[in-house]
Amino acid sequence: MLTTLLPAAADAAAPTMGQIFWSEFLGTAVLLLLGGGVVATNLLPKSKGKGGGWLLINWGWGLAVFAGVYVAFRTGGHLNPAVTIAKVVAYLFFDPSTTLNGVPADNTAEAVLVTGSNVAVYIVAQFLGAFVGAVLCWLTFKKHFDEDCDPALKLGVFSTGPEIRSYGWNCLTEAIGTAVLILWVFVSGHTASAIGPLGVALIIVVIGNSLGGPTGYAINPARDLGPRIAHAILPIKGKGGSDWGYSWVPVVGPIVGAVVGTVVYYLALH
Amino acid sequence: MLTTLLPAAADAAAPTMGQIFWSEFLGTAVLLLLGGGVVATNLLPKSKGKGGGWLLINWGWGLAVFAGVYVAFRTGGHLNPAVTIAKVVAYLFFDPSTTLNGVPADNTAEAVLVTGSNVAVYIVAQFLGAFVGAVLCWLTFKKHFDEDCDPALKLGVFSTGPEIRSYGWNCLTEAIGTAVLILWVFVSGHTASAIGPLGVALIIVVIGNSLGGPTGYAINPARDLGPRIAHAILPIKGKGGSDWGYSWVPVVGPIVGAVVGTVVYYLALH
Amino acid sequence: MLTTLLPAAADAAAPTMGQIFWSEFLGTAVLLLLGGGVVATNLLPKSKGKGGGWLLINWGWGLAVFAGVYVAFRTGGHLNPAVTIAKVVAYLFFDPSTTLNGVPADNTAEAVLVTGSNVAVYIVAQFLGAFVGAVLCWLTFKKHFDEDCDPALKLGVFSTGPEIRSYGWNCLTEAIGTAVLILWVFVSGHTASAIGPLGVALIIVVIGNSLGGPTGYAINPARDLGPRIAHAILPIKGKGGSDWGYSWVPVVGPIVGAVVGTVVYYLALH
Amino acid sequence: MLTTLLPAAADAAAPTMGQIFWSEFLGTAVLLLLGGGVVATNLLPKSKGKGGGWLLINWGWGLAVFAGVYVAFRTGGHLNPAVTIAKVVAYLFFDPSTTLNGVPADNTAEAVLVTGSNVAVYIVAQFLGAFVGAVLCWLTFKKHFDEDCDPALKLGVFSTGPEIRSYGWNCLTEAIGTAVLILWVFVSGHTASAIGPLGVALIIVVIGNSLGGPTGYAINPARDLGPRIAHAILPIKGKGGSDWGYSWVPVVGPIVGAVVGTVVYYLALH
Repeated sequence: MLTTLLPAAADAAAPTMGQIFWSEFLGTAVLLLLGGGVVATNLLPKSKGKGGGWLLINWGWGLAVFAGVYVAFRTGGHLNPAVTIAKVVAYLFFDPSTTLNGVPADNTAEAVLVTGSNVAVYIVAQFLGAFVGAVLCWLTFKKHFDEDCDPALKLGVFSTGPEIRSYGWNCLTEAIGTAVLILWVFVSGHTASAIGPLGVALIIVVIGNSLGGPTGYAINPARDLGPRIAHAILPIKGKGGSDWGYSWVPVVGPIVGAVVGTVVYYLALH
Repeated sequence: MLTTLLPAAADAAAPTMGQIFWSEFLGTAVLLLLGGGVVATNLLPKSKGKGGGWLLINWGWGLAVFAGVYVAFRTGGHLNPAVTIAKVVAYLFFDPSTTLNGVPADNTAEAVLVTGSNVAVYIVAQFLGAFVGAVLCWLTFKKHFDEDCDPALKLGVFSTGPEIRSYGWNCLTEAIGTAVLILWVFVSGHTASAIGPLGVALIIVVIGNSLGGPTGYAINPARDLGPRIAHAILPIKGKGGSDWGYSWVPVVGPIVGAVVGTVVYYLALH
Repeated sequence: MLTTLLPAAADAAAPTMGQIFWSEFLGTAVLLLLGGGVVATNLLPKSKGKGGGWLLINWGWGLAVFAGVYVAFRTGGHLNPAVTIAKVVAYLFFDPSTTLNGVPADNTAEAVLVTGSNVAVYIVAQFLGAFVGAVLCWLTFKKHFDEDCDPALKLGVFSTGPEIRSYGWNCLTEAIGTAVLILWVFVSGHTASAIGPLGVALIIVVIGNSLGGPTGYAINPARDLGPRIAHAILPIKGKGGSDWGYSWVPVVGPIVGAVVGTVVYYLALH
Repeated sequence: MLTTLLPAAADAAAPTMGQIFWSEFLGTAVLLLLGGGVVATNLLPKSKGKGGGWLLINWGWGLAVFAGVYVAFRTGGHLNPAVTIAKVVAYLFFDPSTTLNGVPADNTAEAVLVTGSNVAVYIVAQFLGAFVGAVLCWLTFKKHFDEDCDPALKLGVFSTGPEIRSYGWNCLTEAIGTAVLILWVFVSGHTASAIGPLGVALIIVVIGNSLGGPTGYAINPARDLGPRIAHAILPIKGKGGSDWGYSWVPVVGPIVGAVVGTVVYYLALH
């Protein structure tokens, strides 16, 4: 569908499909290796950081995004279909000069245009990267996954889950968290600062600190679904179910939040 | 009163009233969503971050300011009537070149002049934004507010309260904390640094770490009163009183501190 | 003695004695208000941050330096006689182009030259500022100081003390911590970075994290002695002794460390 | 072997061997003083920061790297043979314009070329610096080392050890952590940011937060082996064995990770 709405890339000198793929794939893999890792460090038996607490987890995820955005330098470091979708909404409805990686469209050697195929490569690379990052995380903590513990803790290294199950409210929580992220992505360009990817890292830390209590802040469909598939497939010792009943929430909530955040930015602040 | 003391805006190309309103309104709403959220994460039953501790709360509020200042890029990111009042005091008594958003007054396309109507829009937007941010926070944690717990914890998500009730000393604590903030706002322009809004975020973290023990550092009349009104109005399950007896302290203390901080800066360091 | 060794300031347009005084005085006062405050928040009865832990304390002190350095923008933000002494040693023995605030000496409107009277003003202002900051901290937490608790906790808000009393080893610990600080002050100019005072703040955090376990890292004679005098003078309810037996350690140790750090820099890295 | 593969330095004006030595030696000594120190602060009896937790330890190590990289400004702040080896691999197989300190090779006054003797000086200086830093750490905490406690805690201040001993999996964990570090070192130059050494410090924090649970993240052969030798030699009261059986893991794992990280960067992202 997007493919029909969006123009094809016109300039052969732009980043290739392969470059785009590796950028988002490796960036998201690093995100999930480090993000899953901080949960494993906090939860799994015999980890040196067991019981490190919520601030540890949030610094872990924030700095996982920090690392991943550096790795995905060529594509603007989305690592998240919600960000990609926000860029598409901006392009289609508000600002046709939008590019996926923020480089001006007339810089044909570096800009990644909003085309259907580019969007597809971003999102496929994000899901595959999240899957592979989760596998690497499992390998890093292999001996700890082999220990006996509540299967919910093992699933928690891969995917999020709500403390109080209520799909509608859980969706709302995920949507609000994602809307804050997307709003920040759009406003960040208006303020002078030279901290680079540390900015978005700190936004992830605060979303975790502040909005993560109810659902564990997926705020990213790939971050949740890719590892959930890994959890279902991998031969993890003593694992339980992958909680597929909840799996649509961290996909739908963030997409709704991405659209809302984009609309609020363009209507109220642009 | 301010309206008669201050000149009217002279240049139609300056940011509009609407732009000013949305900037401070949305910035303060994000501040309270994230700031209230970190308290909810720390205090409410069944939150993943329950008992996360004082450093978690302070990083939460500091980075809530970080996010809010980015959102309110057009207006200099006050988010706090104490900051706006400090600018007015500076303008009236010390430096007539002061503008509300720090843009030189001759940049008529961007500067927000110190006029009575602009000041009024800032402050109204801050209170409304704080109210709406508190409502969003309540929605984010709706199912956790529905759980049984001490009503004081539920009020704590909205407004501050003292550990040892003593209105005079509580006022002094709030005034000292706010004076540090305002002093920093004025001196920060003299030191080369490119960290942008991270600077004020870190100042909020340290005011919380260091001066927040007695009263919970409102240091901002809108941050406290707006959400207190929300607490009184919203149908929060099992809520107690809104502690109106204390409500004037986080309004008066910060205003006194703002004036003191401004005067110290201009007399001793300018 | 220093007065005879050092030239008099030659240019009337340089910062005045009064400007130098207010800069170091207010900067050090803010340092001690916030630094003492984080200990009070962590230790005193009924504080909201009671038991917040070592990382809370170290972020508090690090960001207290962050705030104080901004306030003391005109004088290079020493806030610490050990830093001032290091500059004097550098000037006398290694590099006659050294100025106290790092501004090139030929910028006569801004540079603060290494003269005996300037050095004296720095150090007097630092001690007075530390004293006043400690008094402000006491006022901020007045009602908490009025509560009953171990008098050692009340002293701990003002001054440092060793966990294992052994004056020689305690001195060594203080000297090593200060040497790291001073070494960093000298090397920091060789590396491109735009984080400004956040750099030295992070160095304080890590010195606290890493070297503060035995003695509580005074690494600054004014930071320890000024507040100790305040503790002795102030009518603090239920206070104990001011531990004068230990009081020379956080003065002598840091001075030795400052000299060592300066010598190591100039011999090995300059 | 490297000596025969690599050309000799051609330009006498480049940094001298002595300058290179002191840079890496003092930088790594500061790294181990502060890195060992944070473990001592967290583990040793009667330390003020005892039980400070995993996030304290990771901020300690991250900011220890921050400090050490500033000290080693002349050599690019490797402080780690894995980084040096990664540069050699890059030079030999992928990019002959690589220099050890990142300065363009035609800047003959500052660049450190990839020659066999330079590489040897880097690595020798790193091991000696790590040894001396560990000795300084022991002196800083001398009275605390003299207290009775589990000998494993005393060894833990010097060297890493696995929570679940399994040399193959432990090697893999160390290799993955190091690969993330090396990948970041190579990609970091592609993203605009002015935070300087804070970038690599935050990467260390997140590697610790996220991948340190199983083995304590040596990710640096010198950081582990140098202090282990110090542990074996020093007259530490009540010490146990130095666990030589494990000692090869934090040497081999990081070297493998360094090669993998370099190869991934050049094949997928360059």
